[in-house]
Amino acid sequence: MPDTGAPIDTDALIVGAGPTALFLAFQLGLQEISSHLVDSLPAVGGQCIELYADKPIYDIPAVPVCTGRELVDQLIAQAAPMRPSFHLSQQVSEIVALDEGRFAVQTSAGRSFRARAVFIAAGVGAFIPRALPVDGVADHAGRQIVHSGEPMPPVAGLQVVVFGDNDEAIECVLAAADALAARVTLIHRREAFNAAPQTVARLREAIAADRVQFMAGQAVALTSAGGVLTHLQVATPDGSTTALAADVVAVRWGLSPKLGPIADWGVALQRKQVVVDPGTFETSVPGVYAVGDINTYPGKKKLIVCGFHEATLAAFAASSRLHPDRPPHLEYTTTSARLHRLLGVAGPG
Amino acid sequence: MPDTGAPIDTDALIVGAGPTALFLAFQLGLQEISSHLVDSLPAVGGQCIELYADKPIYDIPAVPVCTGRELVDQLIAQAAPMRPSFHLSQQVSEIVALDEGRFAVQTSAGRSFRARAVFIAAGVGAFIPRALPVDGVADHAGRQIVHSGEPMPPVAGLQVVVFGDNDEAIECVLAAADALAARVTLIHRREAFNAAPQTVARLREAIAADRVQFMAGQAVALTSAGGVLTHLQVATPDGSTTALAADVVAVRWGLSPKLGPIADWGVALQRKQVVVDPGTFETSVPGVYAVGDINTYPGKKKLIVCGFHEATLAAFAASSRLHPDRPPHLEYTTTSARLHRLLGVAGPG
Repeated sequence: MPDTGAPIDTDALIVGAGPTALFLAFQLGLQEISSHLVDSLPAVGGQCIELYADKPIYDIPAVPVCTGRELVDQLIAQAAPMRPSFHLSQQVSEIVALDEGRFAVQTSAGRSFRARAVFIAAGVGAFIPRALPVDGVADHAGRQIVHSGEPMPPVAGLQVVVFGDNDEAIECVLAAADALAARVTLIHRREAFNAAPQTVARLREAIAADRVQFMAGQAVALTSAGGVLTHLQVATPDGSTTALAADVVAVRWGLSPKLGPIADWGVALQRKQVVVDPGTFETSVPGVYAVGDINTYPGKKKLIVCGFHEATLAAFAASSRLHPDRPPHLEYTTTSARLHRLLGVAGPG
Repeated sequence: MPDTGAPIDTDALIVGAGPTALFLAFQLGLQEISSHLVDSLPAVGGQCIELYADKPIYDIPAVPVCTGRELVDQLIAQAAPMRPSFHLSQQVSEIVALDEGRFAVQTSAGRSFRARAVFIAAGVGAFIPRALPVDGVADHAGRQIVHSGEPMPPVAGLQVVVFGDNDEAIECVLAAADALAARVTLIHRREAFNAAPQTVARLREAIAADRVQFMAGQAVALTSAGGVLTHLQVATPDGSTTALAADVVAVRWGLSPKLGPIADWGVALQRKQVVVDPGTFETSVPGVYAVGDINTYPGKKKLIVCGFHEATLAAFAASSRLHPDRPPHLEYTTTSARLHRLLGVAGPG
């Protein structure tokens, strides 16, 4: 793990940067609690951006319709006065409670934090590329074998194999053919594609022109020589296995959510969900809260509107923990001069 | 109480028409539950319209800023596909559980309903005009004595007395002077006003021109003759009492929330709040739910964002009660064809 220097001190460390995490950063800001957010995806917005950036959502209160991207853009704008810091393309790998009521948090990119409160707003888990389920893949990962979201190495003159049936897979084979690979093979279990019609049409033209080969089948083994991947063993629908020369393999099966290291953080789980108190959204570990799709409590529904409420009550609960001296009375953004100062707005009239 | 015909049959009767009630009507619609809403105010929107129609709100999720009126307009638009029915300017006066798991609901305007579920979304209570605290007011109410929100009777040639220090009170005295009242007196406990500067300036001009009189003091008694109000007895700051001729009295002290008849509906209360289960938002009476500022549960905060969540879970809980046959799995507005049909929108792509 790369070392990236001294730990960052923060009031709140938020695991995730989806809609609930963004509104949590806003609500924490109203409580004068600063936030750092860590997300496995390369962009802010979580499932909203990963799964439905351009699809309509109809049940955000007072927003009759918006896309996932529009929702995220508004939440980013709302949280902006609170100056949240984002740490993307990395997973929180470790959370350790320290003696003095703080938490040491590590990410997969080697970033470390010392936080006074931790908020798990990880949605359905970290989005991780679906990996080729064959022994030895890890030996070549990131070099001869790349997964969704990872760039292709140079392919000119090489034997290229791409797995998948989606737009990402088809664009990848067409790009490899354009980049003068010696041979480009697309492998999927059958010759049917789950991609935009124009993209499929371009693929069919490339196959007809013999620039791309299609093979129905699935990988069952790798063959290496001296640490270098040379062939894939591919099981085909007729029951035989074929050895296919492979210098570069791109697995374009998209991303899949994984609970991942959360299971190791000591918080009580129930059916892979984090158990919380619905009055505070605190987990079984004091100072660690969980909000949004990752948590469970009686009546829980995995809806964004519920995540917003959970983030709000968690921020109040954390404020009582972090600022036990602060009077707990509720202030309103419409009338409170303190909140106007935090929001950077002038009060009415 | 006027009789307005046969009871209206409805799935849901919602007490209140503020933001939480509006989002509840939307969420109930997604559960294929129709709603009738009853509110004491003459307009939809509750406190948002009554108290901060033109003031900014900053903590509605994904809405960095909006006025109370803008928030309500968006919630009305969002709920519109569910065709909620509104019954305004009347209070729910009585809720009686019937044998067959239904509720008979009466309003102060004589409207009656038979509902399968009742939702108390009454905010801080019904907004009721602040009344002149003097014996005998009820004998003249709505005729010689009117309160906030009630229209003035004709005043030409009459002795008019107005109580209050706000815009509504000042506009009322100026209008009475314009309408050729014989004499117009504004009474407040001291000569200081809580109104827009321009409005106060117009009042001071009218006083200087002798079109309006100001009297510091407060009413202590009424004098009537043959059932007709003739004088107000006004205690003045010097300790004396003055008899002031009064044909028409307008009490312009605004509206004040009152829990009112809710206390008689049999639902468990705690410090004048309705106690609910935070997984279902059901009260101590099965089939009666409470959402928004009126309810209480551990961790409760009186915030609109929390009301939206409460409305959502209450709608799911009511759906389980009203449609026990319906599979309880969660559908999303982005992807569900059933929800698209209810919303009146075409599905994506």
